Amino acid sequence: MIAVGVDIGGTNSKFGFTDREGTVIAQSRMKTQGFPDTRSFLKELKKQIESIHSLDEVVGIGFGAPNANFYNGTIENPPNLPWKGIHPIAEEAEEIFGKRCVITNDANAAAMGEMVYGKAKDMRDFVVLTVGTGLGSGIVINGELVYGKHGFAGELGHTLVSFNGRSCQCGKKGCLETYVSATGIRRTVYKLLADYTEPSPLRSISFDELDTKSITEAAAAGDKIAIEAFRYTGRVLGMKLSDFVVHTDPEAIFLLGGLSKAGEHIFAPAQENMEKYLMPLFLDRKIQLQPSGLKDDDAPILGASSLVWKYLVKKE
Amino acid sequence: MIAVGVDIGGTNSKFGFTDREGTVIAQSRMKTQGFPDTRSFLKELKKQIESIHSLDEVVGIGFGAPNANFYNGTIENPPNLPWKGIHPIAEEAEEIFGKRCVITNDANAAAMGEMVYGKAKDMRDFVVLTVGTGLGSGIVINGELVYGKHGFAGELGHTLVSFNGRSCQCGKKGCLETYVSATGIRRTVYKLLADYTEPSPLRSISFDELDTKSITEAAAAGDKIAIEAFRYTGRVLGMKLSDFVVHTDPEAIFLLGGLSKAGEHIFAPAQENMEKYLMPLFLDRKIQLQPSGLKDDDAPILGASSLVWKYLVKKE
Repeated sequence: MIAVGVDIGGTNSKFGFTDREGTVIAQSRMKTQGFPDTRSFLKELKKQIESIHSLDEVVGIGFGAPNANFYNGTIENPPNLPWKGIHPIAEEAEEIFGKRCVITNDANAAAMGEMVYGKAKDMRDFVVLTVGTGLGSGIVINGELVYGKHGFAGELGHTLVSFNGRSCQCGKKGCLETYVSATGIRRTVYKLLADYTEPSPLRSISFDELDTKSITEAAAAGDKIAIEAFRYTGRVLGMKLSDFVVHTDPEAIFLLGGLSKAGEHIFAPAQENMEKYLMPLFLDRKIQLQPSGLKDDDAPILGASSLVWKYLVKKE
Repeated sequence: MIAVGVDIGGTNSKFGFTDREGTVIAQSRMKTQGFPDTRSFLKELKKQIESIHSLDEVVGIGFGAPNANFYNGTIENPPNLPWKGIHPIAEEAEEIFGKRCVITNDANAAAMGEMVYGKAKDMRDFVVLTVGTGLGSGIVINGELVYGKHGFAGELGHTLVSFNGRSCQCGKKGCLETYVSATGIRRTVYKLLADYTEPSPLRSISFDELDTKSITEAAAAGDKIAIEAFRYTGRVLGMKLSDFVVHTDPEAIFLLGGLSKAGEHIFAPAQENMEKYLMPLFLDRKIQLQPSGLKDDDAPILGASSLVWKYLVKKE
């Protein structure tokens, strides 16, 4: 038995075949843009998927996508995808592929991937934060993803850091993801470059070109601006983690995505500040912030395909 | 079939008999203090309970208490109760009463009461905030109370409002309950009395004697300090509610306890500020902050007794 995982992203959609243990048997990607509607996208996706491996032994297809609603099997008004409105992707895909399909948002898929293939196999209560362009999160309680009344639970990237803080693409100000994300740390670097006079290799990189990788490399080479940017980012993250912990009392919090590759530059200040602001009752429990057990490159496909084992295949 | 609910409080313990519909058939109270251990307290409790009604038809006894751990049936190092250490109350009570017993913390009991008897009968996802001396909370997801890995989920009173904020009895600074609670609004009134020169009837009341009732009465009579104290309290509450909502996406948030009796003085600014700081995606869902459906005086007993129907009696 094998599963297909599809991660629909703003620019590219990644897809791959995986077995029950999380081995990615084959994978590829295609442009998400350039299709007038979701049906034409899905038809091309089927062609591309079949070009790398047969669908014969596939028991189901899991989709991860921004603004996906698990309850309805839809994608709803995604700001970063080319299709406006509400689209019944799961139903359309079942018809086109002739396979059972399930969809959830990308951060929930990542959390499911951690539970099915990663470090959370034996955990029933944990949180996964996916820190890419934005900050997504999936909350698991009693071994089940938390969807909430309307299917929107786990929008931790939009908790409040500061009343009059940075403008967020969601329309609010001061959201966590304006500080803790690839975009957030870029903004922090630019603020530090403006505020201080230290020379830094980052001064030669434009805002548009600056990415987490450059900042990570600069920090590793001892650049003060880069190190301070991670320290600041970790402090903001840690402060909000202390709030997340008292909500659902998780066993662990996993970090996935570009920012997590900075290692101790981000984990140390985040853990330190989480504990600093955490209700003392929880301190004995040593709740660890740790890197995800999924390889970053495979994580979107693994997250999406894990939905198949969780929701479509009966437990042995 | 009837149930007994016991709310163990720092000063008094309330107890009562209730039917499945939430009618309190008989109730009374006794001092919690003055017993060397939990067994002697429970033995006296049994006498007192039997003095108001027979235990014959009772199917189980539910306990609500601070620092109660549902998983273990224990009370663990409660700061406001006379017994230090860890006490297996559920087991001791089963032995003494000869009835099945269940215990959880008082805020979780309140949430269960709302689901069994109150306004959340048809809800599967909601939050109850109990605003008394402190701020407790019970989170329900998919119709189940959230306990978390260690049984401590829902400590929303200890989320962070301000880094260098007011000292909290938990050992931290700036916790929500130092602003939003009977103690919190009292601190706010005193700060306002210090900062401004407006005459106010509250200037004649000492800090120790000032209670939510006096502040509510002053606000109702148009006192500017009292009105501003509620506005400030509501603003802080609303701001943090916007964070709670994006965690678990509840259908409603219920407020129980002294502060909720101030009506629109607290509900209006809290709702307004929740919406002001809420991720726009959630605004269409009109998540309402509303008063609990349980009568304040009966709520602790109803909350505790509701555990019996939820956990000890098989569904018909």
